[in-house]
Amino acid sequence: MTAYPKLTPQERAEEYAKVQREYQSLKDQDLQLNMARGKPGKDQLDLSSGIFQQMLRPEDYLSDGIDVRNYGEMSGLPAAKRLFAEILGCKPQQVFVGGSASLQLMYDTIAKGYTHGLLHSPRPWCREETIKWLCPAPGYDRHFQITESFGFEMITIPMTESGPDMDAVEQAVQDPAVKGIWCVPKYSNPDGIIYSDETVRRMAALKPAAPDFVIMWDNAYCIHEFEGEYVEFPDILSLCEAAGNPDLVFEFASTSKVTLPGAGISCFACSEANLRHMEKLLSVQIISFDKVNQQRHVLYLRDKAHTLALMKRHAAILGPKFRAVLDALDREIAPLEIASWQRPKGGYFVSLNAMPGTAKRTLALCREAGVTMTGAGATFPYGRDPQDSNIRIAPSLPPVEELKQAIEILCVCLKLSALEELGV
Amino acid sequence: MTAYPKLTPQERAEEYAKVQREYQSLKDQDLQLNMARGKPGKDQLDLSSGIFQQMLRPEDYLSDGIDVRNYGEMSGLPAAKRLFAEILGCKPQQVFVGGSASLQLMYDTIAKGYTHGLLHSPRPWCREETIKWLCPAPGYDRHFQITESFGFEMITIPMTESGPDMDAVEQAVQDPAVKGIWCVPKYSNPDGIIYSDETVRRMAALKPAAPDFVIMWDNAYCIHEFEGEYVEFPDILSLCEAAGNPDLVFEFASTSKVTLPGAGISCFACSEANLRHMEKLLSVQIISFDKVNQQRHVLYLRDKAHTLALMKRHAAILGPKFRAVLDALDREIAPLEIASWQRPKGGYFVSLNAMPGTAKRTLALCREAGVTMTGAGATFPYGRDPQDSNIRIAPSLPPVEELKQAIEILCVCLKLSALEELGV
Repeated sequence: MTAYPKLTPQERAEEYAKVQREYQSLKDQDLQLNMARGKPGKDQLDLSSGIFQQMLRPEDYLSDGIDVRNYGEMSGLPAAKRLFAEILGCKPQQVFVGGSASLQLMYDTIAKGYTHGLLHSPRPWCREETIKWLCPAPGYDRHFQITESFGFEMITIPMTESGPDMDAVEQAVQDPAVKGIWCVPKYSNPDGIIYSDETVRRMAALKPAAPDFVIMWDNAYCIHEFEGEYVEFPDILSLCEAAGNPDLVFEFASTSKVTLPGAGISCFACSEANLRHMEKLLSVQIISFDKVNQQRHVLYLRDKAHTLALMKRHAAILGPKFRAVLDALDREIAPLEIASWQRPKGGYFVSLNAMPGTAKRTLALCREAGVTMTGAGATFPYGRDPQDSNIRIAPSLPPVEELKQAIEILCVCLKLSALEELGV
Repeated sequence: MTAYPKLTPQERAEEYAKVQREYQSLKDQDLQLNMARGKPGKDQLDLSSGIFQQMLRPEDYLSDGIDVRNYGEMSGLPAAKRLFAEILGCKPQQVFVGGSASLQLMYDTIAKGYTHGLLHSPRPWCREETIKWLCPAPGYDRHFQITESFGFEMITIPMTESGPDMDAVEQAVQDPAVKGIWCVPKYSNPDGIIYSDETVRRMAALKPAAPDFVIMWDNAYCIHEFEGEYVEFPDILSLCEAAGNPDLVFEFASTSKVTLPGAGISCFACSEANLRHMEKLLSVQIISFDKVNQQRHVLYLRDKAHTLALMKRHAAILGPKFRAVLDALDREIAPLEIASWQRPKGGYFVSLNAMPGTAKRTLALCREAGVTMTGAGATFPYGRDPQDSNIRIAPSLPPVEELKQAIEILCVCLKLSALEELGV
């Protein structure tokens, strides 16, 4: 195989005709395949069937003397706080355990800033002329949708191999209108990058002009290795505190990809001063979160070691799926020099950079052939990828055999769009 | 027993001395009793132990072909929609099933009005000069806390025996700054009043000046009889539609006092146009609510008839508690002519109007004697009862024996504060 950019026009035309035939025959199979979202597959859901066997004995209704079936304990069961604190490496009293969605807690944090103000806000954000927000990109589309929804001006921060470009971040936070940043510090969505120690240290030591600047530290994949051993990560809360910024960060986590997606438990962790402020605001909107599900998770997951053992079983399912994707790209695309990609060891995505100007076309071709992918541009603020290059691959949902078909189609579409871009 | 207002000063002094001795001896018992919140008792929680026996078979994971354990179905499981629709008398496609708290859904509805605007809002409410809100009072303190928290100007609407004073409501909605009203149409909190057909009809036919006026129809006690047979109620959605106001109302309900408080499922019901608008806004904050718990409830509650049978078992526990309260009041207080109260047949409260100017003093005396009650004034906007008269009694939590002690103390405190008010 010759790299496409090195082909003569004649060779390109021949290759295009050949790949078109391949595309047509794949299309004729009328497949319906989905690699759009980081949705666990059925075999992963089955790993947690044991969670339904909890709470069968009356003594399970009690946790630290609290009847988990009744109202109360707005900030969560102490035992659930201890579980998340052990996983995140922070203190139980810094943890607020919520409902089934960490996205909801993130939304709430920003919504509270908007309607009431965070702990150090001079006024609610809805009373500010302009709110700006830092968005390392490629990033998580649902993060960007939240800040877009509130009308914030989103500023793209380039992602590097070691996390967000910290020179750009340090520069940007000098603007007092910049009120926060989205971060996925371990196995970033979609790149799968682990922020370097240096990046995390500089993040914790930021000196933003806005007194109420907030780091939204979405530790969604903190224990989500699918390849190799569990990788330790630093406690951002104590790093912020040591840097004189105790109230700078809100960390988020959930069990959506540990037990059941959308039916797990979630938390945020922050300074105790931040926690008190949020409790005061949240107590207006809820009496208490679902402590029965918190208790179910405490009984089922037990502790960090036991949870990591469960994650090994997820890895045994996810690892082959990611390898199928990466093997196909290595085999079919690498020699053609029309795309590059990360090789993550955890998280839920493979981030691929196609030849600039071809991402939209590639995904349109995929869709036509029955493969649904995350929309082009989704990984950038406002859904606009300035290079039209980044493609997020989510291999978790389809069974391996379907996944292999889907990735074969993606490879063919990458080839077609690259050849079109080069001129055929 | 002579009515206190008819006693001579000498008789009052003697009575006061006697009641003071009773109070002292009750205080000496060092009791810790709680009649503060509408919190079900342990025996009620035990009624729903069967809910933990659901979801044990793999076929239970599927509902209408949907794997309830994975992400998706943002507006709720179809089967859960059908269950709530049957109970509320509306259509399944008008129902959004959420998480464990209807309070959260109410907060969200108002928060969305504030940050983004409701379906017919010319602009988000945070961009309006003033927002006013109608608060039938006595009413639910948590409702009033939400509208207070957003800085709305709350206007008290008197409650009558047939619901909110509709003359006052019809007058008030002519002000375009008035954006909504709180309602608990069946067994109102705290009065236990069922809105009359006339009240409901006039409510549905309101012609507010604000295009985005919203009736917050909190049907918290729609199937919560503790005395007598289930009482049918009209479907507010179809009444609004028939009156040419399809988008006027959001109805709320939950299973918090059917299955488990804070671990049940909740819903709102509204026009399909409203539902689409809310879905669009809510999809930014959550991928999907806890469908596993929705399915657990569908399997456990089955349908309206089966749910009503469960409510009969709640009634068997709650009925004696309410009768203990009402009997004590009838026996100890009625002859003294120092207070009046409603005799509800459902809901979670007895609303007592003490002699004006004595509610705060009565509750302070109760607290001193170890009985925690809902704070005086809590049933009015801003926690300010202009008469200092209304006391909300919540008899559900304590066992009957404790409840009898608590109500005995309340009666003594009512006597003391009335005698003090009359002059001793």
